[in-house]
Amino acid sequence: MDGYRDIVRAALQEDIGHGDLTTLATVPEDARCAVRIVAREPGVMSGVGLARTVFDETATDVAQWKSITDGDSFAEGDVVVSFKGLTRGALTGERVALNFLQRLCGVATITRRFADALEGTSANVCDTRKTTPLLRSFEKNAVLHGGGSNHRFGLSDAILVKENHVAAAGSVRNAIEQARAYAGHTTKVEVEVENLDQLEEALAASPDIIMLDNMDTDMIRAAVAKRGSASVILEASGNMTLERARQAALAGVDYVSVGALTHSVKAIDLSMLIEPNHD
Amino acid sequence: MDGYRDIVRAALQEDIGHGDLTTLATVPEDARCAVRIVAREPGVMSGVGLARTVFDETATDVAQWKSITDGDSFAEGDVVVSFKGLTRGALTGERVALNFLQRLCGVATITRRFADALEGTSANVCDTRKTTPLLRSFEKNAVLHGGGSNHRFGLSDAILVKENHVAAAGSVRNAIEQARAYAGHTTKVEVEVENLDQLEEALAASPDIIMLDNMDTDMIRAAVAKRGSASVILEASGNMTLERARQAALAGVDYVSVGALTHSVKAIDLSMLIEPNHD
Amino acid sequence: MDGYRDIVRAALQEDIGHGDLTTLATVPEDARCAVRIVAREPGVMSGVGLARTVFDETATDVAQWKSITDGDSFAEGDVVVSFKGLTRGALTGERVALNFLQRLCGVATITRRFADALEGTSANVCDTRKTTPLLRSFEKNAVLHGGGSNHRFGLSDAILVKENHVAAAGSVRNAIEQARAYAGHTTKVEVEVENLDQLEEALAASPDIIMLDNMDTDMIRAAVAKRGSASVILEASGNMTLERARQAALAGVDYVSVGALTHSVKAIDLSMLIEPNHD
Amino acid sequence: MDGYRDIVRAALQEDIGHGDLTTLATVPEDARCAVRIVAREPGVMSGVGLARTVFDETATDVAQWKSITDGDSFAEGDVVVSFKGLTRGALTGERVALNFLQRLCGVATITRRFADALEGTSANVCDTRKTTPLLRSFEKNAVLHGGGSNHRFGLSDAILVKENHVAAAGSVRNAIEQARAYAGHTTKVEVEVENLDQLEEALAASPDIIMLDNMDTDMIRAAVAKRGSASVILEASGNMTLERARQAALAGVDYVSVGALTHSVKAIDLSMLIEPNHD
Amino acid sequence: MDGYRDIVRAALQEDIGHGDLTTLATVPEDARCAVRIVAREPGVMSGVGLARTVFDETATDVAQWKSITDGDSFAEGDVVVSFKGLTRGALTGERVALNFLQRLCGVATITRRFADALEGTSANVCDTRKTTPLLRSFEKNAVLHGGGSNHRFGLSDAILVKENHVAAAGSVRNAIEQARAYAGHTTKVEVEVENLDQLEEALAASPDIIMLDNMDTDMIRAAVAKRGSASVILEASGNMTLERARQAALAGVDYVSVGALTHSVKAIDLSMLIEPNHD
Amino acid sequence: MDGYRDIVRAALQEDIGHGDLTTLATVPEDARCAVRIVAREPGVMSGVGLARTVFDETATDVAQWKSITDGDSFAEGDVVVSFKGLTRGALTGERVALNFLQRLCGVATITRRFADALEGTSANVCDTRKTTPLLRSFEKNAVLHGGGSNHRFGLSDAILVKENHVAAAGSVRNAIEQARAYAGHTTKVEVEVENLDQLEEALAASPDIIMLDNMDTDMIRAAVAKRGSASVILEASGNMTLERARQAALAGVDYVSVGALTHSVKAIDLSMLIEPNHD
Repeated sequence: MDGYRDIVRAALQEDIGHGDLTTLATVPEDARCAVRIVAREPGVMSGVGLARTVFDETATDVAQWKSITDGDSFAEGDVVVSFKGLTRGALTGERVALNFLQRLCGVATITRRFADALEGTSANVCDTRKTTPLLRSFEKNAVLHGGGSNHRFGLSDAILVKENHVAAAGSVRNAIEQARAYAGHTTKVEVEVENLDQLEEALAASPDIIMLDNMDTDMIRAAVAKRGSASVILEASGNMTLERARQAALAGVDYVSVGALTHSVKAIDLSMLIEPNHD
Repeated sequence: MDGYRDIVRAALQEDIGHGDLTTLATVPEDARCAVRIVAREPGVMSGVGLARTVFDETATDVAQWKSITDGDSFAEGDVVVSFKGLTRGALTGERVALNFLQRLCGVATITRRFADALEGTSANVCDTRKTTPLLRSFEKNAVLHGGGSNHRFGLSDAILVKENHVAAAGSVRNAIEQARAYAGHTTKVEVEVENLDQLEEALAASPDIIMLDNMDTDMIRAAVAKRGSASVILEASGNMTLERARQAALAGVDYVSVGALTHSVKAIDLSMLIEPNHD
Repeated sequence: MDGYRDIVRAALQEDIGHGDLTTLATVPEDARCAVRIVAREPGVMSGVGLARTVFDETATDVAQWKSITDGDSFAEGDVVVSFKGLTRGALTGERVALNFLQRLCGVATITRRFADALEGTSANVCDTRKTTPLLRSFEKNAVLHGGGSNHRFGLSDAILVKENHVAAAGSVRNAIEQARAYAGHTTKVEVEVENLDQLEEALAASPDIIMLDNMDTDMIRAAVAKRGSASVILEASGNMTLERARQAALAGVDYVSVGALTHSVKAIDLSMLIEPNHD
Repeated sequence: MDGYRDIVRAALQEDIGHGDLTTLATVPEDARCAVRIVAREPGVMSGVGLARTVFDETATDVAQWKSITDGDSFAEGDVVVSFKGLTRGALTGERVALNFLQRLCGVATITRRFADALEGTSANVCDTRKTTPLLRSFEKNAVLHGGGSNHRFGLSDAILVKENHVAAAGSVRNAIEQARAYAGHTTKVEVEVENLDQLEEALAASPDIIMLDNMDTDMIRAAVAKRGSASVILEASGNMTLERARQAALAGVDYVSVGALTHSVKAIDLSMLIEPNHD
Repeated sequence: MDGYRDIVRAALQEDIGHGDLTTLATVPEDARCAVRIVAREPGVMSGVGLARTVFDETATDVAQWKSITDGDSFAEGDVVVSFKGLTRGALTGERVALNFLQRLCGVATITRRFADALEGTSANVCDTRKTTPLLRSFEKNAVLHGGGSNHRFGLSDAILVKENHVAAAGSVRNAIEQARAYAGHTTKVEVEVENLDQLEEALAASPDIIMLDNMDTDMIRAAVAKRGSASVILEASGNMTLERARQAALAGVDYVSVGALTHSVKAIDLSMLIEPNHD
Repeated sequence: MDGYRDIVRAALQEDIGHGDLTTLATVPEDARCAVRIVAREPGVMSGVGLARTVFDETATDVAQWKSITDGDSFAEGDVVVSFKGLTRGALTGERVALNFLQRLCGVATITRRFADALEGTSANVCDTRKTTPLLRSFEKNAVLHGGGSNHRFGLSDAILVKENHVAAAGSVRNAIEQARAYAGHTTKVEVEVENLDQLEEALAASPDIIMLDNMDTDMIRAAVAKRGSASVILEASGNMTLERARQAALAGVDYVSVGALTHSVKAIDLSMLIEPNHD
């Protein structure tokens, strides 16, 4: 809501400083142009609204805006955004708009590859908190656009009990009970386990979700068997590749969480082309 | 200065929301611990100060802080940071500290590889404006830590005349003159050229720097020859790999600018280990 | 975290404007005093940390701070906070400190009365989103101090499907499925129902929580019976008095949510007494 | 001005967090509705502009806005606001809009009761600084809407000399002279007195206003007599009920200041009804 | 309070941008120095606290701070501030500290000259709202340091009825009554008049202050005579020179308000000298 | 960009506080007027956009805006801005708009006088960092409007090596090399010298610019001679009067930098006239 526009402004402020000297010096105030953003490689779109906000904030007086939709696939050479507007605003916003778009398309694209890898299984791919500082809501949306699912947003919307919390609380059961008492009945409780003994202890405490951390496929399969008919959700995690994710899914977990959706993103190559507008 | 701490606070706010429920529920307020951040792969350090600020902001009451220095190389298994402090603050700050460190070490590490690739040439590797929105100053510092050099910070500290500016101004010469008049004598003027004809036109206008955009090695070599004894700096740019960067350097340019130093960074794998403190 | 101190600063800024003219004019810069905050009626404490922050922000140079603890009961005449410090800071912060404390003690005190009314039942009292704008985290903490439990913090940490959402989605089942798909597996889903038919429809869709809105005690009892052994949590809501809350609890719900914990709070009467310090 | 919109944004940010998950998941982006805000009990309106700003900030695309005016009385069942707009924006803004309106109508309503109680006397009811942190300007406006008058806004727009200031300055006269010298000729000076001796001392120092703190009606009457023809304004203060306020007014004071106008406000019960718009 | 430090931070941010490149490049991180700020011309000090805050914010690790006091006079060559600290912080803060100090000493110095010009009369010199945007509280304090008095801080702490307000309200009497009713009894009411007819109309309405705008000395004398024994304060205003101010004071007004105290300030020449510290 | 509007809002907030009491009390909400801003003395315009933003921010609903252009000269009596709009917004914004305009026109006007003084020479007048805190970008623009040129904006867009940096680095050469290595190839390097020996040392290190600090005309002439055919830019600086600036220019420097363009500005006298609008 509010934060959305604030982030765009801060990003522009960071780039523009006290003024886009080159553009102010060389481009007439009233010059207009036609703009196309073109994909140099295939991918999945995310961030169209951010790009639009960038050009609104640089006072581009945007007209005839056309774009594909967040979540759409695109091929090399596709025009993914086009519009007309003031040349100054277009040039001044170019780099910031592309920096957002290229990263977010990168997140959506890698997510799509994981989602495709889980095709035909009953598991979903989801993200983690390994996101770029200050860009989490954008990156979590990009995961949705890529066909993934969101894990908790941050430290306050779900409980995730890890080893250190268990150590402090004395036992898995204690940790879960303390967490439930503190956070109230509208908050889910997840517990991380690393082996089958911990899994049994966790199952006995009836959390909402159990995270199977860094288990190999055999252990994951055993964990699924131990769950039996309990209503707890199982999530596999830890250095997931496309292949490992599919194996975990086939072994029967409900979710596979993948830090690489956001922590090591390859930017999708996009270019912005500008033509003087002779209308 | 100011912005530094503000960015850390905003990143923590993003993650913490209205509270780290799990930690508040399970960890006693006065529990203390020993913390080690350990490298899971080799790399180059950047961001030690940010990490420290994170734990200060989460009221960790840090003591006995030890760390390697920004710019230092580390090997798999190395302890890169260690300290003692309150367990709540350490756990609450863990993810944000690692999100900063892993990305910035990633930037420093890939920069170091490019710097090494230019070893023995007279060229330096430098960055671009293809940085993560809001993290530019940190990423540009990480480039320095990796042994690279900084290109302009943003749109207001140097002139970079591109094709669209030339089109608007009528000619390279006009664009440079307008830019110089607008920006004053303390600002450098760079011009981007894509072929040798443009290069000649640019040389005639005496900019401070000429960027050779997306030229192959032969054309770069010809460009260097055309420069002759002129005092203009030559910079090669455009989809640089380690191999292409070295070729450009050997062909005689002064700088090779590489977007990939910051736009598609592989996070360096770091873990944070916590032991209850029995002092 | 960050927001905490920011709220105190904004509250002081609102009150102080360009300066506490009376105090600056009449009180010497180095005058010191002893301060006691005294209860004029019984209640439950909440907000001790905020009060301390107020006096730190007015540069009171606080020493010998003593206070009862959030959650403690106090009687008429009790000294709940005492400290020594600079007279200017104490006088300038007095009103803001009391405005926070009196309201938050009011929240904790009314919560305690509801918690006491549920004594011996298996139900807990919890709050709602009917909080004072910008003070939600403080008021939700005051509910904890009073012995209550927190409902969701806001619109992003749990799903609450109401009549309008059901209408838009077509059915309770659709609404829940869409919500689960959008929010992911770490978010709880609650559905509001107003009668037993809606309850049956809701039960069939297996939400995590069902809110029984504005039902009389007989209908609540029938709803509890319909739940049978299903694992869904039942929450009674709607214009709860102490008496109605207890009836709902005895009828078998797990939670009673009460808007009046925060929306119509009677401030607890506290005074601040200052004596010149002759040390 | 600026702060007005900022407060609304911060209140929405507090409630919305990273998104209104329920609404985003279940309500189509282009669904529109008709909205009515209905009074569940009689009262006096305040905050119409804030409510409108809330729905503008949630991008409700408001049309056909109709409302009664701040200061108008309403009866149980009255529609106090109605409009058409996007359903998402209406649902997302509902709670924040009502949280503001219910509190501010509460302030205006209790003020109206005090104003009515002073009917036929020459005294006015006025507020104090016992307001909700960060909402002072809204609450002070609500007092005007209820027919009351505003006391000073904060610590910088008028002098109010209390016992501690007198103690620091040595005497009432000293305190007033120091205050006048510091604050300049455009600032009024008020002195608080608790008995008739202090009143005489205060009268001798010619302040603009004297506050009679916690006096019973007989003493107030004596104080008015002592004033005689002096031009000083007399204000009665301290735990005022409707009855005590009227007695003080009949005894001849000019103003009665009442903390309860803002410190213990009963929220007025308002509901928001939404109908899908089939236009 | 809060704003004070925020203004310093914003001023440093404005100057430092993404870093003091020269100092970071050439001065070792741990180099220390002795600093003296020396007056190059006589003047009156104002802003010592701001200067200190600047160096604290640049992390100068200030020690042995010594300075004259706000309001003190200084001669050419005097050392007005001295301290020891880190060289980087001292150099980075130098310009901002001097920009504040030179301007504020300028305000205090010109105020002192006006105050001296009124010596022996019963009038005081006061300021106006013709201050530098965002620096008003500092400049109003500088006026106090120079021996002047403050007029209203801004539009909300006193009423000033001008010609356009009178036109809108229909008469001076109407304007004053409306203003009193709106602003309450704690706010002073001033009326601006330009001739003796307006003065009579104003006197009849009993404002607290009457501003005699742009009157010559004879008219001012006549205005004072018309006031007689009324308790209203008279203030002369409009393009005041030292000579005109003294004439107005001798003619019997209580205050002379002077825009030039703040709107056209000659900066006092101060230099900062730095010596490497060989301790 | 962003900061522009923020500065205007902060300036209005500073002046308006919690409301323009006089205007709210006396001027009907829907009253409209015609406004003219008239010059009381000749000058050069700067700040038209800021003034417009002020009235937009006070919700003046501006229509028929007409103004001269930044950089235009005006004579005494000229109407420099005129518009129609709501009377409340016009009155509330008047002082802030004039405070900005009068100062910025002052900067542009004194700059024009220096530019005129250099007429016929090959030198340009430029500004310094001796600007008003928080208003630097506006004042630097005003220098452009006056016909001057901008020196570096702040500490991060160009290197300026002064005596203390040289002392820390060991020599001029070291300082320049360190600065170049740190700041990269897109940043200019300037060195300040005070005599001819330092000039020679500086010339040997090939900086981009040499500042001749506080030299008399003979020494400047000698410095120009020593430069010979080197490509370095020469800038004269230090207590420049119109006469000294012209002498320096005739002696052959390229730039004359003048702190007095911004540090001791005489506000240009402008008045705002308002007529009720009887349309």
